[in-house]
Amino acid sequence: MRILMINPNTTASMTAKIGEVAASVASPGTEIVSVNPADGPPSIEGYFDEVFAVPGIIAEMSKASAIDAYVIACFDDTGLDAARCATDAPVIGIGEAAFHLASLVAGKFSVVTTLARSVPAIEHNLVKYGLRSRCAKVRSSEVAVLDLELPGSDARRKISAEIARSLGEDRAEAIVLGCAGMAELAADLSQEHGVPVLDGVACAVTLAEGLVRVGLKTSKVGGYAVPLGKRFAGIYAALSPNGAAPQA
Amino acid sequence: MRILMINPNTTASMTAKIGEVAASVASPGTEIVSVNPADGPPSIEGYFDEVFAVPGIIAEMSKASAIDAYVIACFDDTGLDAARCATDAPVIGIGEAAFHLASLVAGKFSVVTTLARSVPAIEHNLVKYGLRSRCAKVRSSEVAVLDLELPGSDARRKISAEIARSLGEDRAEAIVLGCAGMAELAADLSQEHGVPVLDGVACAVTLAEGLVRVGLKTSKVGGYAVPLGKRFAGIYAALSPNGAAPQA
Amino acid sequence: MRILMINPNTTASMTAKIGEVAASVASPGTEIVSVNPADGPPSIEGYFDEVFAVPGIIAEMSKASAIDAYVIACFDDTGLDAARCATDAPVIGIGEAAFHLASLVAGKFSVVTTLARSVPAIEHNLVKYGLRSRCAKVRSSEVAVLDLELPGSDARRKISAEIARSLGEDRAEAIVLGCAGMAELAADLSQEHGVPVLDGVACAVTLAEGLVRVGLKTSKVGGYAVPLGKRFAGIYAALSPNGAAPQA
Amino acid sequence: MRILMINPNTTASMTAKIGEVAASVASPGTEIVSVNPADGPPSIEGYFDEVFAVPGIIAEMSKASAIDAYVIACFDDTGLDAARCATDAPVIGIGEAAFHLASLVAGKFSVVTTLARSVPAIEHNLVKYGLRSRCAKVRSSEVAVLDLELPGSDARRKISAEIARSLGEDRAEAIVLGCAGMAELAADLSQEHGVPVLDGVACAVTLAEGLVRVGLKTSKVGGYAVPLGKRFAGIYAALSPNGAAPQA
Amino acid sequence: MRILMINPNTTASMTAKIGEVAASVASPGTEIVSVNPADGPPSIEGYFDEVFAVPGIIAEMSKASAIDAYVIACFDDTGLDAARCATDAPVIGIGEAAFHLASLVAGKFSVVTTLARSVPAIEHNLVKYGLRSRCAKVRSSEVAVLDLELPGSDARRKISAEIARSLGEDRAEAIVLGCAGMAELAADLSQEHGVPVLDGVACAVTLAEGLVRVGLKTSKVGGYAVPLGKRFAGIYAALSPNGAAPQA
Amino acid sequence: MRILMINPNTTASMTAKIGEVAASVASPGTEIVSVNPADGPPSIEGYFDEVFAVPGIIAEMSKASAIDAYVIACFDDTGLDAARCATDAPVIGIGEAAFHLASLVAGKFSVVTTLARSVPAIEHNLVKYGLRSRCAKVRSSEVAVLDLELPGSDARRKISAEIARSLGEDRAEAIVLGCAGMAELAADLSQEHGVPVLDGVACAVTLAEGLVRVGLKTSKVGGYAVPLGKRFAGIYAALSPNGAAPQA
Repeated sequence: MRILMINPNTTASMTAKIGEVAASVASPGTEIVSVNPADGPPSIEGYFDEVFAVPGIIAEMSKASAIDAYVIACFDDTGLDAARCATDAPVIGIGEAAFHLASLVAGKFSVVTTLARSVPAIEHNLVKYGLRSRCAKVRSSEVAVLDLELPGSDARRKISAEIARSLGEDRAEAIVLGCAGMAELAADLSQEHGVPVLDGVACAVTLAEGLVRVGLKTSKVGGYAVPLGKRFAGIYAALSPNGAAPQA
Repeated sequence: MRILMINPNTTASMTAKIGEVAASVASPGTEIVSVNPADGPPSIEGYFDEVFAVPGIIAEMSKASAIDAYVIACFDDTGLDAARCATDAPVIGIGEAAFHLASLVAGKFSVVTTLARSVPAIEHNLVKYGLRSRCAKVRSSEVAVLDLELPGSDARRKISAEIARSLGEDRAEAIVLGCAGMAELAADLSQEHGVPVLDGVACAVTLAEGLVRVGLKTSKVGGYAVPLGKRFAGIYAALSPNGAAPQA
Repeated sequence: MRILMINPNTTASMTAKIGEVAASVASPGTEIVSVNPADGPPSIEGYFDEVFAVPGIIAEMSKASAIDAYVIACFDDTGLDAARCATDAPVIGIGEAAFHLASLVAGKFSVVTTLARSVPAIEHNLVKYGLRSRCAKVRSSEVAVLDLELPGSDARRKISAEIARSLGEDRAEAIVLGCAGMAELAADLSQEHGVPVLDGVACAVTLAEGLVRVGLKTSKVGGYAVPLGKRFAGIYAALSPNGAAPQA
Repeated sequence: MRILMINPNTTASMTAKIGEVAASVASPGTEIVSVNPADGPPSIEGYFDEVFAVPGIIAEMSKASAIDAYVIACFDDTGLDAARCATDAPVIGIGEAAFHLASLVAGKFSVVTTLARSVPAIEHNLVKYGLRSRCAKVRSSEVAVLDLELPGSDARRKISAEIARSLGEDRAEAIVLGCAGMAELAADLSQEHGVPVLDGVACAVTLAEGLVRVGLKTSKVGGYAVPLGKRFAGIYAALSPNGAAPQA
Repeated sequence: MRILMINPNTTASMTAKIGEVAASVASPGTEIVSVNPADGPPSIEGYFDEVFAVPGIIAEMSKASAIDAYVIACFDDTGLDAARCATDAPVIGIGEAAFHLASLVAGKFSVVTTLARSVPAIEHNLVKYGLRSRCAKVRSSEVAVLDLELPGSDARRKISAEIARSLGEDRAEAIVLGCAGMAELAADLSQEHGVPVLDGVACAVTLAEGLVRVGLKTSKVGGYAVPLGKRFAGIYAALSPNGAAPQA
Repeated sequence: MRILMINPNTTASMTAKIGEVAASVASPGTEIVSVNPADGPPSIEGYFDEVFAVPGIIAEMSKASAIDAYVIACFDDTGLDAARCATDAPVIGIGEAAFHLASLVAGKFSVVTTLARSVPAIEHNLVKYGLRSRCAKVRSSEVAVLDLELPGSDARRKISAEIARSLGEDRAEAIVLGCAGMAELAADLSQEHGVPVLDGVACAVTLAEGLVRVGLKTSKVGGYAVPLGKRFAGIYAALSPNGAAPQA
């Protein structure tokens, strides 16, 4: 099975890290392909950045071949609905992946994300997915995404401190890390705080594998129906080498 | 006061119609400027189409000058959150405009939109805005957006029949027309059915004027804060003639 | 266009202030008529006071003529549903007006009202209107309504302090002032705190103008249907000079 | 123990019937006092009628003495919040009484009320009380309140037919009769349809007795706090023989 | 009338206390029978304990005779739904009883229970009953159930301190005590804090009496329908002396 | 990895079928162990049956050894919360498994279960899990659980007909089969109706594998904390051969 991990931002070091985390939890026989768009924002922090990342996500889907499932590796699940229109393979966002698995190991979870500006988009997603009542609080650690890539930053300390506050004040029983760039911290923070700490990248890979294994595909009835007609030809010509329509 | 009406699709006849409806309800002294992106989908029906329309919306915002308020003239309020990040002037979506004004003249309203594939995005918006409980039902008339532009179509008849079903079955007290292309039908259908029938284009123009008149601007604290830094320079170079950053 | 501003309490200085604020945001050509009932409570703080204010509201509606829209200028929207039964012109409450416009310029808002006893009625209104999820918190500044009229009171200082607490603790992106008597403070407090601060009087006037301009009237189907028959003749005889039934 | 049953409308035959139903379920030692205001609407069907009934409710509370609990015997719980401000004795509305007891004998209930115009007020109450999720549907039988008083009307037949529809379509496990005037039909309709059929008058009497027996009083902290000061003196002078303030 | 008070745990001193509290609020003519299962957990604190208590509850129901109503005297309403399947008499849980009566005397209430581990089950019940919006917060006093039985414990002081915090921070207008073992503290704590303090045992007894008095029985349509067939014969043989099926 | 599939009812043919379906979707290297309690109800249809199944579930957990994850293979997720208290390994219910995976491949799903009496428990679970808004409708096919085991029954036809109704009336984009006994029908019904049809057994196995693979365990903070002390010794002596306490 081949899973396409799409990092929607253009920071290659983050793409590499996502690929490594994904590979470390993938089953034997699963091939992880990790990509990012050539153009677009270097990180996604809030509504504005999402806009310029989504066409690149669709382009990467269009360029790849023989993919069994797609993972959108940005915690605000950038472009998830649109990506589901472009294929009948499963498409998983790392935010929703973490929310769903957290709901299976804890009564309530809190989210610790990067900047305050990212909180509203995450709260909207929780409402949309139906899981708002399972989330005690969405918290920001005030660590910018790209600071997570800096060797000497105090990002881990700030995140750990916010987890401690969450356990003390929110009655959270598990913690969801709210950024793909935090993936490699999860096991260590779980050890430190004695509760499940979930990284969406690992959660999404395992859910993608699971959906493929049980034969579930994205419904093509209703909101994720195939886009209408050939009118996007011009867009696809610009997006992909051969201008192919989405493979739905 | 100058209001920029942005038709997010590339169908110029619809842009013209939107401009006419907007001008017909604008106050004396309000100048309506009506535009659409050069590239992108010819109509927006569902999640996929939205993706390719939003960069063009931001580009049109970036190219225009001396604008007091923006209206996004597509019923699913395409790119609304991102557009609010790009300016501190008010930005109104025609969908939300109609939902809010319907809530002021009726206890409950129903929405009659185009195709079934567009229903989930509208339902998500209602949940996000908080007004889901005020909407009895989102209904589709199975009229495609571009069919609304065809002279001999039976679009009006289908929409009227769906309104009749809504009044009979949903306990709706008002009807919201769920597509910018239906704008010119509102007054006539209201007359026919004896209830308020709301067109989002007119609603959005009057709300935009009102926000400007009372001096309200988009909050720059939280989710609509100004995008981070100069990293979008490349994007803006491509989007606007002079590559200017958004005017927030 | 003529808008009847009804101050439901009997404090004439507040009626005058409401009229001034309304006139200052009204469009050219809009005539503001500002009234209050002859009898009833001097201020409305909680459920009990509302009871004795509503018959006077209906009486003022009944006495006025050639009115295009009505505004109920008390933040708990006293008697709003009943007033909508008494006319097919638009009727706007200043509370709902502020909630709806705040939802167009911010993801979340907090309300700063007068006394704690007024909070439950405001919370109930938010639930009823559907906008509870858009409101971070309803806060009281512990300033009584009539203290707002006293020259030397520290009302402004207390309200500003509560706004500061709201921005720090609630993740609010805008503030709604929860009393008609706070109307003239809005612009200044917005300047001070750097977020939109909404006064319901201004919001309601502009919404009333907008509804008239786009031709929307109160639905007469369902909850706001015309009251039954002539049985109120006796009441109207007492309420209005000529005992006329409501003009629905 | 003395319970004051307040019929908020002025139809004496309904007051008598309410008194009889109340007496039939009251415990030995409970004295039922049944009153209605001298002036006001002869029936309450929708928001408008409520306005003119509530001052009379407060007046009746003010005139009575040595009352242990109050029941407001109109299904839309007219003036309930205000009445709770006027006393620290328990005050029960017959609508809420039926909703709460139905929730103890069935997973879900439906309401069968009189006219469609009364449905929105009942739905608002359910939302306010928190019990909306327990109610499958609020239905109208299109029987006017005063028709229930007419000997030869087909009211019972229409109500029974609506109950049958509710059981077939709503998955309701119990039925709440949505009007005080239907009280005497409950036992018979329950027998006919094989499910609990609740009349709010009986429910409210037994709840009022229960609250008194366990010593529970209306909270005077928050929304039901005692009204402010002496400023209502004029109102009370008009309302009650001796102009006494409410006994809170 | 005979009411069976079932203490689902095996601590006889608590059974006795429950019986005394019940008797003290029962009407003349009501006989209180107070029992507990022979086997099972000595206290119920969280989900696990509930499992081993419920078969004993059903067994006690099966052994008793001539019972008009049942009360399950554990605050998490252990086995309530199952017990309602086993009889058509009313069955009341003390948790739900307190929530419903608190909703009749206060706009919002808070719950003060024993240990943090019990909070999630109580929150789930509130959601299920529909009354979550009426509850400001579920708080734990960190007093274990059996410590309430110890003469020299500081349980009362801890509970009172938590009530004080609730009134200061939650805007609660009443307090519900979240454990049957706190029943005898209610009146005293109400006196101390000046708000209604509700004990579920008293509330449930009075509600059970009320349901019997107005003739309401558990619906046998839907979720509480009679269990299927005779297949439980073996279980009942073990549970009750004569292996009788439930009396539904 | 070893997964214990617990069929909570005593029907061995169903246990075998569950084991087969589980094995067919398990990854290489996963060992499926399929058990059912020795005593208890032969099928679980509604609240009453659950009571007598849960002690047996805990007993089976207690008897097994070297288990990495547990699956409770009854669609109403019988005893799920209690089972999570008894271990720190993951525990998955087949109902929740199907709801979560359906939310990843469709905007909205409907459930088709066995008898109407089972619907309320499923609806309660959806509310508790937070996913009620993702479920269009819970429908019953009026096929009893054990009829699914009969060779010549028309169960499949009835279920297929209910799916067709759901797609036509509910706007469902996927179908969840609401009984473990329907597991083997899923692929065929999906083919027939052209939408994802989910069987909870397969979903739960793949989720259990995934949780183990990413190292997630049941939180021991809050509602699923380890049961208190040794007081269950007597119960465990009766339940398991060696009376061992739960392995938490």
